[in-house]
Amino acid sequence: MAGGATTRITAGRPPVSAASLRAVGRPLLRARTLPGPLFSDPGVFEQERDRLFRRTWQCIGREDELARPGSFRTVEIAGSGVVVLRNASGELKAYHNVCRHRGTRLVEATAGDGLRGIVCPYHAWSYDLDGHLRGAPHMGGVEEFDRKDSGLHPVAVATWRGFLFVNVSPRPEPLERSLGGFPARARSYPLERLRRTHRVEYEIAANWKLIVQNANECYHCPGVHPQLVKLTPYRSGEEDLRTGPVFGGWMDFVDGVRTLSPDGKTARATFPGLSATDLRRVYYYVLYPSNFLSLLPDYVTLDWFIPVSPDRTRLVFDVYVDRDEAHSADDAMGFWETTNRQDWHICEMAHLGSKTSAYTQGRYSTEEEVVHLVDQYYLGRMGWLGPKG
Amino acid sequence: MAGGATTRITAGRPPVSAASLRAVGRPLLRARTLPGPLFSDPGVFEQERDRLFRRTWQCIGREDELARPGSFRTVEIAGSGVVVLRNASGELKAYHNVCRHRGTRLVEATAGDGLRGIVCPYHAWSYDLDGHLRGAPHMGGVEEFDRKDSGLHPVAVATWRGFLFVNVSPRPEPLERSLGGFPARARSYPLERLRRTHRVEYEIAANWKLIVQNANECYHCPGVHPQLVKLTPYRSGEEDLRTGPVFGGWMDFVDGVRTLSPDGKTARATFPGLSATDLRRVYYYVLYPSNFLSLLPDYVTLDWFIPVSPDRTRLVFDVYVDRDEAHSADDAMGFWETTNRQDWHICEMAHLGSKTSAYTQGRYSTEEEVVHLVDQYYLGRMGWLGPKG
Amino acid sequence: MAGGATTRITAGRPPVSAASLRAVGRPLLRARTLPGPLFSDPGVFEQERDRLFRRTWQCIGREDELARPGSFRTVEIAGSGVVVLRNASGELKAYHNVCRHRGTRLVEATAGDGLRGIVCPYHAWSYDLDGHLRGAPHMGGVEEFDRKDSGLHPVAVATWRGFLFVNVSPRPEPLERSLGGFPARARSYPLERLRRTHRVEYEIAANWKLIVQNANECYHCPGVHPQLVKLTPYRSGEEDLRTGPVFGGWMDFVDGVRTLSPDGKTARATFPGLSATDLRRVYYYVLYPSNFLSLLPDYVTLDWFIPVSPDRTRLVFDVYVDRDEAHSADDAMGFWETTNRQDWHICEMAHLGSKTSAYTQGRYSTEEEVVHLVDQYYLGRMGWLGPKG
Repeated sequence: MAGGATTRITAGRPPVSAASLRAVGRPLLRARTLPGPLFSDPGVFEQERDRLFRRTWQCIGREDELARPGSFRTVEIAGSGVVVLRNASGELKAYHNVCRHRGTRLVEATAGDGLRGIVCPYHAWSYDLDGHLRGAPHMGGVEEFDRKDSGLHPVAVATWRGFLFVNVSPRPEPLERSLGGFPARARSYPLERLRRTHRVEYEIAANWKLIVQNANECYHCPGVHPQLVKLTPYRSGEEDLRTGPVFGGWMDFVDGVRTLSPDGKTARATFPGLSATDLRRVYYYVLYPSNFLSLLPDYVTLDWFIPVSPDRTRLVFDVYVDRDEAHSADDAMGFWETTNRQDWHICEMAHLGSKTSAYTQGRYSTEEEVVHLVDQYYLGRMGWLGPKG
Repeated sequence: MAGGATTRITAGRPPVSAASLRAVGRPLLRARTLPGPLFSDPGVFEQERDRLFRRTWQCIGREDELARPGSFRTVEIAGSGVVVLRNASGELKAYHNVCRHRGTRLVEATAGDGLRGIVCPYHAWSYDLDGHLRGAPHMGGVEEFDRKDSGLHPVAVATWRGFLFVNVSPRPEPLERSLGGFPARARSYPLERLRRTHRVEYEIAANWKLIVQNANECYHCPGVHPQLVKLTPYRSGEEDLRTGPVFGGWMDFVDGVRTLSPDGKTARATFPGLSATDLRRVYYYVLYPSNFLSLLPDYVTLDWFIPVSPDRTRLVFDVYVDRDEAHSADDAMGFWETTNRQDWHICEMAHLGSKTSAYTQGRYSTEEEVVHLVDQYYLGRMGWLGPKG
Repeated sequence: MAGGATTRITAGRPPVSAASLRAVGRPLLRARTLPGPLFSDPGVFEQERDRLFRRTWQCIGREDELARPGSFRTVEIAGSGVVVLRNASGELKAYHNVCRHRGTRLVEATAGDGLRGIVCPYHAWSYDLDGHLRGAPHMGGVEEFDRKDSGLHPVAVATWRGFLFVNVSPRPEPLERSLGGFPARARSYPLERLRRTHRVEYEIAANWKLIVQNANECYHCPGVHPQLVKLTPYRSGEEDLRTGPVFGGWMDFVDGVRTLSPDGKTARATFPGLSATDLRRVYYYVLYPSNFLSLLPDYVTLDWFIPVSPDRTRLVFDVYVDRDEAHSADDAMGFWETTNRQDWHICEMAHLGSKTSAYTQGRYSTEEEVVHLVDQYYLGRMGWLGPKG
């Protein structure tokens, strides 16, 4: 088969030495950073899909995007199409967007309303919004064919305070466990009341892990985010969630700053019930591995990223305000448009270098303690730490 | 070699379980459809090239496209360039479009006339239209160099009733065998008299087997081809060739319909000598694996498809009428332009779903009996049925 | 991991038979040309990077492109970024363009001046122009972290008569050895005085070895370069360097021709000190594997090619004249623009054919003696000749 690229089941181990992985697991001051091939090897990427992205909850937005029975959205999770919808009784459901007959993609639109059922565009097999097979023409007499067993392959769906999560694992862990310490941190924020004002999508030429690392330190802020550090000094605050699956903490506004916007001001009301402390902080949390959630006094942002290849990551960024807020959030979106592009660009520069043979494992600074914890958490989830690791 | 994709000789087996293949081979009512990896695995694709497309006859059009001595066409067969031409005495010949000196592609144009010989554009090695090496400058004194052994690598070429076939196999089977039962079915049609009126090329983002499956059932017609089923009810007719290498049968026109055109009418004369029965039918035949031939009362269509990758198929579609027919076939082309695009789109949807991990082998309906036969025939040709299969 | 392409460490051997390699090593009149897979196999390409392009000197241009302390250029060598610069004391230095902290690409611009130091755009680690780590914020307390060991990974840089060479090998051979017999041939040319007048970049859809083969014979000139052979008959001259790492020789101008230009004339002065013989010759040399250098009576050209994949090669072409020459070299550039495009096109045709399964090893003509020597030299450098080869 000369000339053809090939697929294969790779061994469970990445193409790096066990010693290089053990070096990541040492205490911070003696640890080494992740080996370069983890950022570019296609086999590693496929294992990440299997072991992380096909086993974890991903926040794809808000449940109010599915306003009423028949509302639907289609998304891509680790290479598979998923349709999320509200059934006739208004319950949220999700299914693999694949017909049970011959595998045809069922729903082509990215979103819509008024879905009464799902009819395969190919051979008209039909399913109700609960995924049950309703119609399958000319299947009479087919043996061992039980319509009850021929419904759409379900995908787990769950909500938490208005946020909408899906999980393609056949045995998903409880959503709460994947939220870790975040609910306690977010308690005082009226998340149920959020309304989306912006959604932008980015295509980033970098491995997804570089984006996660970027979100877990502000060591880069002085050089990368000059306007951000004017509002929140890069060493302010503390990271108070450090063990996963949620990582993060807060940063402090300098005096006079009320939110993250080009001038630190806002015309929006602050969320009711926030403490004086919360009013002077921005909270950043990584819901490992697919989301970032940031809490500000007057708005909230969500990042959802979808690894497309070792070299490419698609990222969906949302801005939310209180549903009764009259003022625009264009200032907040503008601030993050600038900040996001600064981050994606530097992640692309990190990707360019870290995938070359000239990159050798580096060292973590004392400002990268959480990056080190996240990197170890990653190796643990991949099964690459421990005796053999 | 981290980072580099690799080639390798894969084992003869596809990356699926023997049981999943055996399940395809069961009787229709208990069978399962083809496993998903067969539609996307690059190794499977390379084996298909080796075991099918490099061993079978492909109809690339009509011999009258090569009107006179020196007329030529260049085509791509399973990744190799081939030049087809008429020699000085008007005989059809075909050769690999590769110089015997250092492998340079010889003829760059896709078609032309007046070729007197083939001169390599690189070092001017020259060949006559019979493929014999005529000139090879500065090869004097080279040992074991016999010009008689240094001609162009021949490719088998044959015609049947004006259709032009090529086969890159060094030991091609007789064309007649690959035509199976088709000649008997087509006997009453004056195929020698055909003249091409249209040729269009499509690029389809789907595995070639999905296109073959699509052509072997009209189970999809009610949903996919609303205008077609008005003319030929989807359950009409019968598939009378079922054992391969040719598969197919006919469908019946509803009363008042004289051909497949937007309104079922035609200004063209019907072919002389057709029976009353033939005048009320369209015959569809798959010349496995590369062609479809359709016979109508007043025109004929040919599909020739060229698999480019597991995910892409190029398809050339021709319309033919009687050489003395004065009326245009634009109506027929328009009808098929619509119908073809409906099919290619649904094949692309089928491809999107069937290559995902969420696709599990489905079931054949009683309307897909021939699809089931074709799928088994495919596995047989690939050597994947039987004890080990 | 179905669906994913994979990387792997391939065995040291290419995917061809030992006999096919031995056949290349026979005496010219009995030898066979390189097997086709060597021109398209990704594993072979990765081994070529490891064994050739990461171990050899490459001429990237002239040292005067780095005019003063702080001048820099960034280039790509075998997939890795390299920055070449002049340090504070004016010495030439080169480094992998990769931060020692987390591998970020350091310098993004392709060239510039006034560099005082290199600051990583990510976390502001800073290096002086000698590659020493100067600043690394928040690394206090990190153990086994010695700034002296954390400088930029050096890349060897050297000059010869104004030409600038880099070599990413950790143990580069002396530049002189890689220049072989070239310095003696070029002695009478005032190379120190050269000034660049043109630089053009080409993207060639051909394997790099086809480009090297093309440069080592004029057997193709009658068919490919009609205007060139009018000035230098294709069999004129002699190839006087034949053992590598430099290959080449000269060709003779026909009477009345003073240089290679559209009309064979020139308004430029000839280089001082050339012999009457040199004034009637063009010298062509291949500095294996990455450069061609051509010497004419009134100008010099340099080709530097960068293999991007088995199927693609980027090539940078420079024209140089005496620094005091007042007349334009547009005529020379125009001549080579035509000649270069003729060569790249024929190399692309050679690539199309030689990567197909229809290509079988061919024979060398008596005009390809040096191509045969170069092909054997290639196999030797790759470790593919000898008992096992």
